[in-house]
Amino acid sequence: MPTDPARLTADLVRCPSVTPEEGGALVLLQSLLEPAGFSCTRVDRNGTPNLFARWGARGAARSFGFNGHTDVVPVGDEAAWTHPPFSAHEENGWLYGRGATDMKSGVAAFAAAAIDFVAKTPPDGAILLTITGDEEGPGRDGTLALLDWMQAHGERMDICIVGEPTSVETIGDMVKIGRRGSMTARFTVTGKQGHSAYLHKALNPMPAVAFLAHRLSTHSLDDGTDHFDPSTISVTTIDTGNAASNVIPARTRMTVNIRFNDRHSGASLTDWLRAEAEAVAEATGTTIQMESQISGEAFVTPPGPLSDLVRRAIGQETNQSPTLSTTGGTSDARFVRDHCPVVEFGLVGHRMHEVDERVWVQDIQDLKRIYTRLLTEYFALPR
Amino acid sequence: MPTDPARLTADLVRCPSVTPEEGGALVLLQSLLEPAGFSCTRVDRNGTPNLFARWGARGAARSFGFNGHTDVVPVGDEAAWTHPPFSAHEENGWLYGRGATDMKSGVAAFAAAAIDFVAKTPPDGAILLTITGDEEGPGRDGTLALLDWMQAHGERMDICIVGEPTSVETIGDMVKIGRRGSMTARFTVTGKQGHSAYLHKALNPMPAVAFLAHRLSTHSLDDGTDHFDPSTISVTTIDTGNAASNVIPARTRMTVNIRFNDRHSGASLTDWLRAEAEAVAEATGTTIQMESQISGEAFVTPPGPLSDLVRRAIGQETNQSPTLSTTGGTSDARFVRDHCPVVEFGLVGHRMHEVDERVWVQDIQDLKRIYTRLLTEYFALPR
Repeated sequence: MPTDPARLTADLVRCPSVTPEEGGALVLLQSLLEPAGFSCTRVDRNGTPNLFARWGARGAARSFGFNGHTDVVPVGDEAAWTHPPFSAHEENGWLYGRGATDMKSGVAAFAAAAIDFVAKTPPDGAILLTITGDEEGPGRDGTLALLDWMQAHGERMDICIVGEPTSVETIGDMVKIGRRGSMTARFTVTGKQGHSAYLHKALNPMPAVAFLAHRLSTHSLDDGTDHFDPSTISVTTIDTGNAASNVIPARTRMTVNIRFNDRHSGASLTDWLRAEAEAVAEATGTTIQMESQISGEAFVTPPGPLSDLVRRAIGQETNQSPTLSTTGGTSDARFVRDHCPVVEFGLVGHRMHEVDERVWVQDIQDLKRIYTRLLTEYFALPR
Repeated sequence: MPTDPARLTADLVRCPSVTPEEGGALVLLQSLLEPAGFSCTRVDRNGTPNLFARWGARGAARSFGFNGHTDVVPVGDEAAWTHPPFSAHEENGWLYGRGATDMKSGVAAFAAAAIDFVAKTPPDGAILLTITGDEEGPGRDGTLALLDWMQAHGERMDICIVGEPTSVETIGDMVKIGRRGSMTARFTVTGKQGHSAYLHKALNPMPAVAFLAHRLSTHSLDDGTDHFDPSTISVTTIDTGNAASNVIPARTRMTVNIRFNDRHSGASLTDWLRAEAEAVAEATGTTIQMESQISGEAFVTPPGPLSDLVRRAIGQETNQSPTLSTTGGTSDARFVRDHCPVVEFGLVGHRMHEVDERVWVQDIQDLKRIYTRLLTEYFALPR
């Protein structure tokens, strides 16, 4: 009986695997993969759970890789959800839940495709699954840990498909061949505490943080490049924690996230942000500290054999000709690209990271078919 | 034997009357005032203790009022005090303790002055003392309850001195003839949650709150008026609580405190803030809700007979010419001013609301002399 990727998606959604919780998701996958002949290893590092699975011999002539993650972002305001976010409620063809599209359905589709493929037509080669429990968090011990472990243990992927949701309107309309870079900067603005009625004795950090947030929010970094959209700047949070309206707070904190194209680097943006902070500090008399963290630099894998393979498989199964894009957030493709050629392809990302995240159940079935076709086409290529 | 206001201050400090606890302070005062000929009534309301005392006839031709409070703010970190905060420890001319300056010494000084004055030179008129046990708390059932009760019972003050500490460097250098108003507005800015990499699907409330905070922080309400400093606007907190830098938050909250002079009212500022919020909401596509709370309107008792009287008494006793000021926070004068002309005058506020609050003992003696002089001068005025 074929493995049902929709049912597997629902089972995974019911695992409350908010980063960094494993939540039972990797354990569930391992329990399906091992009986199907996959050699599984938990590659946990510093408490981050990761699963490596290989069918076929290590060092096989050809090795096809899938990469994905089972962790999910927090549910936000749980009361705002139409259905409990870990209940995997199905209604009118939709499956609801946190992670329904990002990306438990992608993992379910490639795991189901791989399990059934090796059972039906055992290939002359290997299939590797690298599944992490931290793609949404810091990611330092997620796919990176898997790739480090693989290198240390002689494991290799010749190509890799990352199963993130990449489609926009209908499954197969977009493939990602690169990604913008991403960086996060955290600012601490310090003034001097005091009483709201005696401002001359205090130094309020709030006008400074508002000025800095306003400057950054209204700044245009660029107008886009050949393969990339314009870079974007988002203030994601400001937090002060001052409950007393008659007290001027001593300090406040702000976080800014930048998604940048190949005109910038994490280092050039860090320099620019530091200069902005210094200008505001000087204008306001406050002290502004900044820490920056670069999640990934911008990168692009130029169109070639791998993207051709993916386009062909999608065309055969859906009659679509996907756009090759570099839009969207970061993904673990930024790590995989240092290991082997990588392309990202998955289903439509309905309400990713939002309330009432959901997936169109038929898309999960279609995605499994496309992944199966990819395996078929790959292993049919002349050696 | 004259009543010693320093000893009375020490006795009051030993009453642990942290709002809303009576702590024995009003009971102690009543036990001194009644034998001295004052008719006393406890005017408690909703559990808040208050004491009304009158010497002379109700409806007398002239009626001089004092107002004060015996409640104190919490001691904070008791271990940080050099001496236990309710021990009334005396050392090197200082009396230490919570409430030593704010304002048990003020109450002790006017009670002692009134008791001795009526014994020595019974005036042709009445002296009223209104002493509350809630000036530091919400204040809804404190001086307001006393004034309500007085109106209902035909009690009247022609003028009133609030004995709050108003002096800055030396006793007698400052008198308060009014106070700025104070209001607090709380804003909730709502956008649409989403992913930092897909900004077109989200609506970030952070640029809107930054824009609004920046507009308000850089706005000048006025340049001051005849009797007042310029009004001030303080953003006191912005809180979002979004821990994930790859998530655009759905909403954020901001609190703004305004200290305003007599060019504005709580209502006019509420209208202005609402218009500012609407402009920013329209410019950003967000929804901005606002709630405002008016703690007190600006008021002033213009220089005239009452302030002249106070200046004269201070000049005679200290050779100082006090500044007539409207600076600082709110006080119960904001309630009394609806009843009769009111001026605030008291000693230097050493470490008010802080650890090691203390009063210079000689100042308490001087304050009693000034209050006595005030009574003498007032009742010597031609009818």
